[in-house]
Amino acid sequence: MSKPLGDIVEALGGTRHGSPDLLIHRLAPLATARAGDLAFVAQARYASQIDSTAAGVLIVPPSLEAQALARGACIVADDPYLYFARLTQWWRQQNETTPPPGIDPLASVHSSANVEDGVSVGPFAVVGEGARLARGARVGAHCVVGEGARVGEDTVLHPRVTLGQACTVGDRCVLHSGVVIGADGFGFAPHKGAWVKIEQLGAVRIGNDVEIGANTCIDRGALDDTVIEDGVKLDNLIQIGHNVHVGAHTAMAGCVGVAGSATIGAHCTIGGGAVVLGHLRLADGVHVSAASVVTRSLLKPGHYTGMFPIDDNASWEKNAASLKQLNRLRERLKAVEQAIEQALQNNTKP
Amino acid sequence: MSKPLGDIVEALGGTRHGSPDLLIHRLAPLATARAGDLAFVAQARYASQIDSTAAGVLIVPPSLEAQALARGACIVADDPYLYFARLTQWWRQQNETTPPPGIDPLASVHSSANVEDGVSVGPFAVVGEGARLARGARVGAHCVVGEGARVGEDTVLHPRVTLGQACTVGDRCVLHSGVVIGADGFGFAPHKGAWVKIEQLGAVRIGNDVEIGANTCIDRGALDDTVIEDGVKLDNLIQIGHNVHVGAHTAMAGCVGVAGSATIGAHCTIGGGAVVLGHLRLADGVHVSAASVVTRSLLKPGHYTGMFPIDDNASWEKNAASLKQLNRLRERLKAVEQAIEQALQNNTKP
Amino acid sequence: MSKPLGDIVEALGGTRHGSPDLLIHRLAPLATARAGDLAFVAQARYASQIDSTAAGVLIVPPSLEAQALARGACIVADDPYLYFARLTQWWRQQNETTPPPGIDPLASVHSSANVEDGVSVGPFAVVGEGARLARGARVGAHCVVGEGARVGEDTVLHPRVTLGQACTVGDRCVLHSGVVIGADGFGFAPHKGAWVKIEQLGAVRIGNDVEIGANTCIDRGALDDTVIEDGVKLDNLIQIGHNVHVGAHTAMAGCVGVAGSATIGAHCTIGGGAVVLGHLRLADGVHVSAASVVTRSLLKPGHYTGMFPIDDNASWEKNAASLKQLNRLRERLKAVEQAIEQALQNNTKP
Repeated sequence: MSKPLGDIVEALGGTRHGSPDLLIHRLAPLATARAGDLAFVAQARYASQIDSTAAGVLIVPPSLEAQALARGACIVADDPYLYFARLTQWWRQQNETTPPPGIDPLASVHSSANVEDGVSVGPFAVVGEGARLARGARVGAHCVVGEGARVGEDTVLHPRVTLGQACTVGDRCVLHSGVVIGADGFGFAPHKGAWVKIEQLGAVRIGNDVEIGANTCIDRGALDDTVIEDGVKLDNLIQIGHNVHVGAHTAMAGCVGVAGSATIGAHCTIGGGAVVLGHLRLADGVHVSAASVVTRSLLKPGHYTGMFPIDDNASWEKNAASLKQLNRLRERLKAVEQAIEQALQNNTKP
Repeated sequence: MSKPLGDIVEALGGTRHGSPDLLIHRLAPLATARAGDLAFVAQARYASQIDSTAAGVLIVPPSLEAQALARGACIVADDPYLYFARLTQWWRQQNETTPPPGIDPLASVHSSANVEDGVSVGPFAVVGEGARLARGARVGAHCVVGEGARVGEDTVLHPRVTLGQACTVGDRCVLHSGVVIGADGFGFAPHKGAWVKIEQLGAVRIGNDVEIGANTCIDRGALDDTVIEDGVKLDNLIQIGHNVHVGAHTAMAGCVGVAGSATIGAHCTIGGGAVVLGHLRLADGVHVSAASVVTRSLLKPGHYTGMFPIDDNASWEKNAASLKQLNRLRERLKAVEQAIEQALQNNTKP
Repeated sequence: MSKPLGDIVEALGGTRHGSPDLLIHRLAPLATARAGDLAFVAQARYASQIDSTAAGVLIVPPSLEAQALARGACIVADDPYLYFARLTQWWRQQNETTPPPGIDPLASVHSSANVEDGVSVGPFAVVGEGARLARGARVGAHCVVGEGARVGEDTVLHPRVTLGQACTVGDRCVLHSGVVIGADGFGFAPHKGAWVKIEQLGAVRIGNDVEIGANTCIDRGALDDTVIEDGVKLDNLIQIGHNVHVGAHTAMAGCVGVAGSATIGAHCTIGGGAVVLGHLRLADGVHVSAASVVTRSLLKPGHYTGMFPIDDNASWEKNAASLKQLNRLRERLKAVEQAIEQALQNNTKP
């Protein structure tokens, strides 16, 4: 499908330079855009690409208006990246075929479930006793909504999401395929060399506008609930342990692991593959680099990192071997310093 | 639901101080417990919380009996944490509505499958040819039990577990949603720049009392079987490669990866995000810290760690840069030591 | 089942020493093989095992022919490991009961889907509008093939694979249970402390002869597609971000994470648990060790590593503490070197 430039600016604002009838065939990256495409230039530091891209229309910030205009049609917007984000949403809305409301005849919905207006339930989905699907919720094929669980308004469960008993998801959330909400937290008491299970009696509570990536798991709490606040964004294959609390608008990249009872503040970012140990506290505004291991509470906002720098293997082997001697090296250095100190004192003696 | 204190002590033992009719509304953490709640104090070092908690009843060890009694009702137990674990089990039993035995009419069970008494099979589950579901097994919605696979007595497969062909799970196990048992191990022979698949002809054998977390994968063996012994506890999103052998009562936290043919002893613990390379052997009683990479066999019991300490990013950048010079630093230090040694020898020459 | 030695050599070539009627009961590892089993010796360095194994028949390279012959029956092949790989395939073919072509009556296949000859679709699978299942494709139970998606010839989707809208998988691929192809990439624009979703308008394109392990996720592209080229092999629980490009015949072990827009060359290997950050480029023939974090482009083929060496915990603690002083140590060493230099200059003054 194609859309006229005028429709875009009418819907999303910004200043249009170029004919409203100019047809946009595709949204495209600057580097691969073709003549009928629309691309964006987020910041002045990408200005050099304005002249090299083949894109028919550009979204640019005011500072690049003159340069963009010199080459052709453009939309001027204060924050081109944000404009572009909203444009992708509008573009999808123009195309998307949302499933019509209704319960697929191949779904299994308990008679006591509370299914509000505009809800769709896909084939082979299972909705348990007393579950509630709020207005406009979309439950994909093969989803399981457990007993007494709640799916908020306009929330989308992609195919094959499991929402455990008594767990709740707020409004306008998106849960991708393979997500498991409310499996048991990992709790056992040691006894004579074996492990005695601690039944997990809490649930999971997820706020509004949360997105959860494919195959990510959020465990139910042991006694109290595990809590994900509004606006949190979790990528794929993340593990959130029991009784974790994730503050509003925090984002985590793929493969992160957060151990039980960690409390993560609002507006944090956690890089891919990072690990947060249990019972720690991260302040609001903490940013953890990819693959770093958080082993202590981080009570001040800031940027934290801990990761072995990659190197060619031969160099790494030498440095890694020396690393195992590092404390010894430190002691040797201290001895050297003391020897020099002593020598200097001897030399300055009368 | 609420339960009288007397019922709890009657079922689980311990010494009761307080009326048997005292109603317990909830099991709760010490910090958030309210008047009608029951909480536990595991060890003497938490004694200070006895006076600050609002919990109506406490479980305490004998050493804290006097202090607990001074504030109100309590249960005295030799190991309060173990007592608490058993209490969560009892509490759940009082509440739980186990699915009634029977095969959901929306399940697909092969006519040759051996379904014993007391088995429940959820909607849209698939049970293959010659599979066996032992007495009391519970197979959740969307599970797949492959041809010739076996689910042991009273074992619970939560919704959406895949148990591959010929794989077996023992008695009283719990497998959480998204678990995949018996996918192919990762085996290929290199040939002219491409990979030729080695078909995986082994299976997976899982012992009794094993718990496996959400979205965890255990691959089938190449020729022999992959083996998980009794009492093993695996958290979520763990990868167990082909022909791995995990000894009894070993526990692994989330996001661990164990590569093919590793042999892990009994009573080990592996921290979250740790990686164990292939063909290694870990003795019984080895404890690996979170996010550590096991690159060699660990033949002595003990506690092992390898993880870059987290720091503020600016400090990390400096130290990481120096780390790439570490072997060179070591050589420079040696040169310095030799220079000093030489100088001292010169000074002591007659 | 058992097969005569003669049938194997007839099908797969090699030089047979021993009766063609000798029955092979099982393919087995050298160490655990019994009298009726066939095992392989890949290289001369395993020669010592030839005399200790109980295997009835061995596959050996020409250099070991004499030694193997001295103990009994054998097959001589130029590359025994490759021969063994092909033998596992042949062995499986002799045994396997492929599902008969046809659509299970419990599947939900859209009337507009294009289902070619020889296709099988399992129970509770969902095939969307306009999807195409090419000749011989096998779609397992609980799979979802989205609108307009394509499954190539003879490709196998094991039970519970999700293939998103408009995503395509080539011929002769194998996707294991729990795989999610085409979930949304992780893209958000920051705005006033919250995150505005960037709809992911691209798809995923997977080449021929690709294998993808259990619970692995490959996200759809933001604008362009995410691309996996021919012959790529991905293990379990891997995360591939949006717009990643993986070159032909590259293999990744379990738990790897590749962030968005990374471009990985052909014939690379990435060890288990490694992380590749976004927007990087890895040349053809780059080999990354397990658990290493790729933080910069690697433009030359070679072997790269970055991982903290594991140690007993007490030693690690000391070295890790010193590591946080490493840059300071380097400065102290420099000061010592300068002091010595100065002292030497003073001593050599006339």
